[in-house]
Amino acid sequence: MIVIFKKDAPQEAVEALCQQFEAQGLKIHNSMGQHTHLVGLIGDTSTVDVDLVLANAAVEEVKRVSEPYKKANRKFHPEDTVVHVGNAAFGAGHFSVMAGPCSVESEQQIEAVAKSVQKSGAALLRGGAFKPRTSPYAFQGLRADGLVLLRHARSVTGLPIVTEIMNPEHIPLFEDVDLIQVGARNMQNFELLKELGKLKTPILLKRGLANTLEEFLMSAEYIMAGGNENVILCERGIRTFEPSMRNTLDISAVPMLKQKTHLPVVVDPSHAAGIAWMVRPLAMAAIAAGADGLMIEVHNDPPHAKSDGAQSLTPEQFDRLMADIRHTAEFFGRTIHAS
Amino acid sequence: MIVIFKKDAPQEAVEALCQQFEAQGLKIHNSMGQHTHLVGLIGDTSTVDVDLVLANAAVEEVKRVSEPYKKANRKFHPEDTVVHVGNAAFGAGHFSVMAGPCSVESEQQIEAVAKSVQKSGAALLRGGAFKPRTSPYAFQGLRADGLVLLRHARSVTGLPIVTEIMNPEHIPLFEDVDLIQVGARNMQNFELLKELGKLKTPILLKRGLANTLEEFLMSAEYIMAGGNENVILCERGIRTFEPSMRNTLDISAVPMLKQKTHLPVVVDPSHAAGIAWMVRPLAMAAIAAGADGLMIEVHNDPPHAKSDGAQSLTPEQFDRLMADIRHTAEFFGRTIHAS
Amino acid sequence: MIVIFKKDAPQEAVEALCQQFEAQGLKIHNSMGQHTHLVGLIGDTSTVDVDLVLANAAVEEVKRVSEPYKKANRKFHPEDTVVHVGNAAFGAGHFSVMAGPCSVESEQQIEAVAKSVQKSGAALLRGGAFKPRTSPYAFQGLRADGLVLLRHARSVTGLPIVTEIMNPEHIPLFEDVDLIQVGARNMQNFELLKELGKLKTPILLKRGLANTLEEFLMSAEYIMAGGNENVILCERGIRTFEPSMRNTLDISAVPMLKQKTHLPVVVDPSHAAGIAWMVRPLAMAAIAAGADGLMIEVHNDPPHAKSDGAQSLTPEQFDRLMADIRHTAEFFGRTIHAS
Amino acid sequence: MIVIFKKDAPQEAVEALCQQFEAQGLKIHNSMGQHTHLVGLIGDTSTVDVDLVLANAAVEEVKRVSEPYKKANRKFHPEDTVVHVGNAAFGAGHFSVMAGPCSVESEQQIEAVAKSVQKSGAALLRGGAFKPRTSPYAFQGLRADGLVLLRHARSVTGLPIVTEIMNPEHIPLFEDVDLIQVGARNMQNFELLKELGKLKTPILLKRGLANTLEEFLMSAEYIMAGGNENVILCERGIRTFEPSMRNTLDISAVPMLKQKTHLPVVVDPSHAAGIAWMVRPLAMAAIAAGADGLMIEVHNDPPHAKSDGAQSLTPEQFDRLMADIRHTAEFFGRTIHAS
Repeated sequence: MIVIFKKDAPQEAVEALCQQFEAQGLKIHNSMGQHTHLVGLIGDTSTVDVDLVLANAAVEEVKRVSEPYKKANRKFHPEDTVVHVGNAAFGAGHFSVMAGPCSVESEQQIEAVAKSVQKSGAALLRGGAFKPRTSPYAFQGLRADGLVLLRHARSVTGLPIVTEIMNPEHIPLFEDVDLIQVGARNMQNFELLKELGKLKTPILLKRGLANTLEEFLMSAEYIMAGGNENVILCERGIRTFEPSMRNTLDISAVPMLKQKTHLPVVVDPSHAAGIAWMVRPLAMAAIAAGADGLMIEVHNDPPHAKSDGAQSLTPEQFDRLMADIRHTAEFFGRTIHAS
Repeated sequence: MIVIFKKDAPQEAVEALCQQFEAQGLKIHNSMGQHTHLVGLIGDTSTVDVDLVLANAAVEEVKRVSEPYKKANRKFHPEDTVVHVGNAAFGAGHFSVMAGPCSVESEQQIEAVAKSVQKSGAALLRGGAFKPRTSPYAFQGLRADGLVLLRHARSVTGLPIVTEIMNPEHIPLFEDVDLIQVGARNMQNFELLKELGKLKTPILLKRGLANTLEEFLMSAEYIMAGGNENVILCERGIRTFEPSMRNTLDISAVPMLKQKTHLPVVVDPSHAAGIAWMVRPLAMAAIAAGADGLMIEVHNDPPHAKSDGAQSLTPEQFDRLMADIRHTAEFFGRTIHAS
Repeated sequence: MIVIFKKDAPQEAVEALCQQFEAQGLKIHNSMGQHTHLVGLIGDTSTVDVDLVLANAAVEEVKRVSEPYKKANRKFHPEDTVVHVGNAAFGAGHFSVMAGPCSVESEQQIEAVAKSVQKSGAALLRGGAFKPRTSPYAFQGLRADGLVLLRHARSVTGLPIVTEIMNPEHIPLFEDVDLIQVGARNMQNFELLKELGKLKTPILLKRGLANTLEEFLMSAEYIMAGGNENVILCERGIRTFEPSMRNTLDISAVPMLKQKTHLPVVVDPSHAAGIAWMVRPLAMAAIAAGADGLMIEVHNDPPHAKSDGAQSLTPEQFDRLMADIRHTAEFFGRTIHAS
Repeated sequence: MIVIFKKDAPQEAVEALCQQFEAQGLKIHNSMGQHTHLVGLIGDTSTVDVDLVLANAAVEEVKRVSEPYKKANRKFHPEDTVVHVGNAAFGAGHFSVMAGPCSVESEQQIEAVAKSVQKSGAALLRGGAFKPRTSPYAFQGLRADGLVLLRHARSVTGLPIVTEIMNPEHIPLFEDVDLIQVGARNMQNFELLKELGKLKTPILLKRGLANTLEEFLMSAEYIMAGGNENVILCERGIRTFEPSMRNTLDISAVPMLKQKTHLPVVVDPSHAAGIAWMVRPLAMAAIAAGADGLMIEVHNDPPHAKSDGAQSLTPEQFDRLMADIRHTAEFFGRTIHAS
């Protein structure tokens, strides 16, 4: 960490602050420039609160040099982490596809979609029971009943299930869910992250719509700091100025995350654009850029879906896409897992 | 709502969709353009799911004409809502200032700050007990103990208190809090909003860092739809590309929100920039733009604050600022409330 | 185009505006909703000025239904346009790579890089003579002398050249340049676009850092409206909140642009991230998403480059990448062109 | 400037780079951290090219400590600069209002508006002759004829004129313009900035829609580096995710710019929101935040304006607003100038 002092900072204030740092076990390196006096702090600066240092009237600026995340940091854990969920695996060349409807709507629907995506080669069944909706007047999901239906579909097909949690109070309901999803709007719901850190279940953490990669990794760090190191990161599109798509897939996030962390990184091309015909090119790009898996929305009857129909593929479309995904993943050296 | 069909949409598909709309009680107005066929939907379209309509293969685009929020909408409630919290009041010309530390740290600290801001003219005491922090390794607040200390400061000064809730499980702890704050990162924590909608306590809802004003109002609508119509909106800075400040105050949000909704709108200039010296010009701008109140961080010892020291004023700085706020609010025709 | 009137708009004002539209040859379709009165305008609305209509006190909102671009619009020109530059071709399955240094620095440098990238399989030589630099104190390019050196490298290798123009006054200097580039910062330099519309030389138009796809296509329309329909669009990264990369590659822009327009779309992975090691994954993603070509920075000695060294590949790195590009482009069904 | 080396950077590479820095006259301060080796560079680093340093394989990151602008930097020029244009003055407490139509349309129009805004108290007449329009099919301004009409309005009223230049080739036409405006889309048209740096005429530089304050100041630096130090900065709204307004006024830019530079800062509330009724609250906020002037669009007949009618005030509205501006500017201690 580097602390830059103001041009006219009183010498005593500088010295007092440096003594504080030393009291925290940090070493101080002074650098006097033409117009600038700065000090480098040597040691474990992850607990130094940048805001506090900035509050000192003598300080002009503070720059972090080392990342504030540790458990998620590839520097301290160079090998790829592989997260296993049933027969599915993510990371270190292992590639799996999660597929299913945005919302669980009925036993018949989820069972039909589950059988279909399994046949096409998906390794997990996705389906929303608790749905975050912008409007209080929109369908909010079948909630606990939806989880029952997902378990039913799992018992029929053997596919492990992934579904979203929105409330720490619901954790008991998610006890035997195979992979618990944290949605984009809850990426910084720190109370929820802390509770999930106490579980053993793997977590699929989606990136917030306007969050930096460091913030994303700090949210993973929240879960990992609690003891749960089975975290899969999911890039699902960021908010930009472009109105023709719901969000903009940040494909660069895939290689950059994989450079910064050992955790697996998957892509959700369905939410990224919100448009069914764009799922294919974005899925191909995700594989080419190094993703460890994909999450794709499939609905038996998109125009009558209860949510997000615009981005859902039909089972037939998914079947054709899945063939190409397999082919492309192999071309790029990935081992694909099915159920 | 306007539905635009694809150039080559089959006539049967168009008719089938129109029949669906009519079955929902909507009337259809057809418009055939040179290159475009569109229909206008007349009636209550707030429950039409745009995504579903977009999922129809015949549809090219859907445009909402009327706002999806009702209870928060000024069109259906032209007069300003006034929210009262103790002696404080917000809206319809009533102006109040909330002040206090980012985090409650000790009995001595919160009592001293409370007495000081009260003397300067604040109408509410703010103080964080549960703190949303980006890093799991940063100070997370005194939590339940912090609430005890806030109540103590209230009993000493008589100042009503405002503090942030992060978890629906904590609602019992907030029972006698005077004004419950929902932080920017939880603006779309819909599970929390729903629970707060069941309370009678007024809610201070902060705008998310990258949310539109419509999303902001839809979150207010979540609370109001549950029956709690005492919502104060708080603009606290949005994320932009500018690195010299933590966030960028969206001053335009003040007049635009007040045109769209009858709810009071306050501004938090401390979080907006994250820099103590900027609080004054931003506070002045907020009053000039029509804000119904301000929320300002004051700490007895900013360089030793446990969070956000960089943006905190000292009690002396706040006292001087408060004099100017009073003077300026009067100049702009506001009635200022103190405890 | 749809015009939505205010709830309380006086009938005479509405009628007067509608008569104005009819006088412009447009037909009017009325729709009276519960809370809304709107009219649809049928006919060629591309010359209707949205701002003017909004200025009418009776009007609440105006929504465009059809795109404001014509010549670039795929609706009126369904087949892909192929742009040929020497032996290179872009579009309709034709794929070419442009490679070379950010800046032309010396005869020796540009000749060496040209020979090297040609050997590796590039179809065009890129090199900046006029350089847009944020700082007036940074190297501004060799300017006219740089163009002389590029021509020299072309005469030695036969590679067509692509280089950036920044000033309409310089057009005579660019007379025999094979492909003239408009940089991101000049995407809305309308005076320059108009002048380039009068030429026959193909134009490589880069997307601005914060521009929408519609604005991008409107800038292409400026060139095409002048008579020059040989425009290649280049996605080169947009500005986002992510600080770990210079820009963020908008991979979704590739399929979305190709759906909206018949013009070829290429990707510049070097500028998109500004980091040499990211060029490979982003180049792969671009091919997978459907790009018609790539523009890649190659420098004989990146650490001593006069600009943008951080993102340049060495000739050896480019040679290995080019082999993979060829392989991947073939996998995705593209025909690759070399010089 | 601080250079952070990679964890495993070879010692020879580090030393070689340090020798390069020393050869440029810089002094080196070494800091060896636990996981990091960094050096501080002492001396004039404004000519060090960050990209080049980053291109070195041994380097992980580079952080600037001192600002890259000099002539615009308040550190080296602590007193406010006052820019005089006729009787108008901007800076150091001097406050002036520029008003007039978006586009000059006819002799009658510009003369009528000029007389009217002069009577209301404007100090300069604004009017666009060369208009940057997103669409090639929209009205492009009267161009050279518009300048003739502006001069005519000046001769009738004595009001100095401000109008936008878009092309270095047009400089001869702008010879006797009193204040030359560079529009937001040309903020980084460096060729144009360089040419304007050779003039003596004051320049009104508008901030680009997605540019940082440092980029804004670097563009001012381009003009100042050429010898023309009479630059007025204009904040006119930035692009954000909010669709209900054209742009979002960045009110924080006013105090932040004034802290970083000695140049005057004005605000254009008309373009900031693009909505006539928002001009008043934003103008008030601008004065409260410390602006040195305002630029406001006034049109004799907004619904028939040839551009930007939606944001124009009528002369009567401007007259009432101008009274409040005067009153408010005085309240905030500014000296207001009229013609």
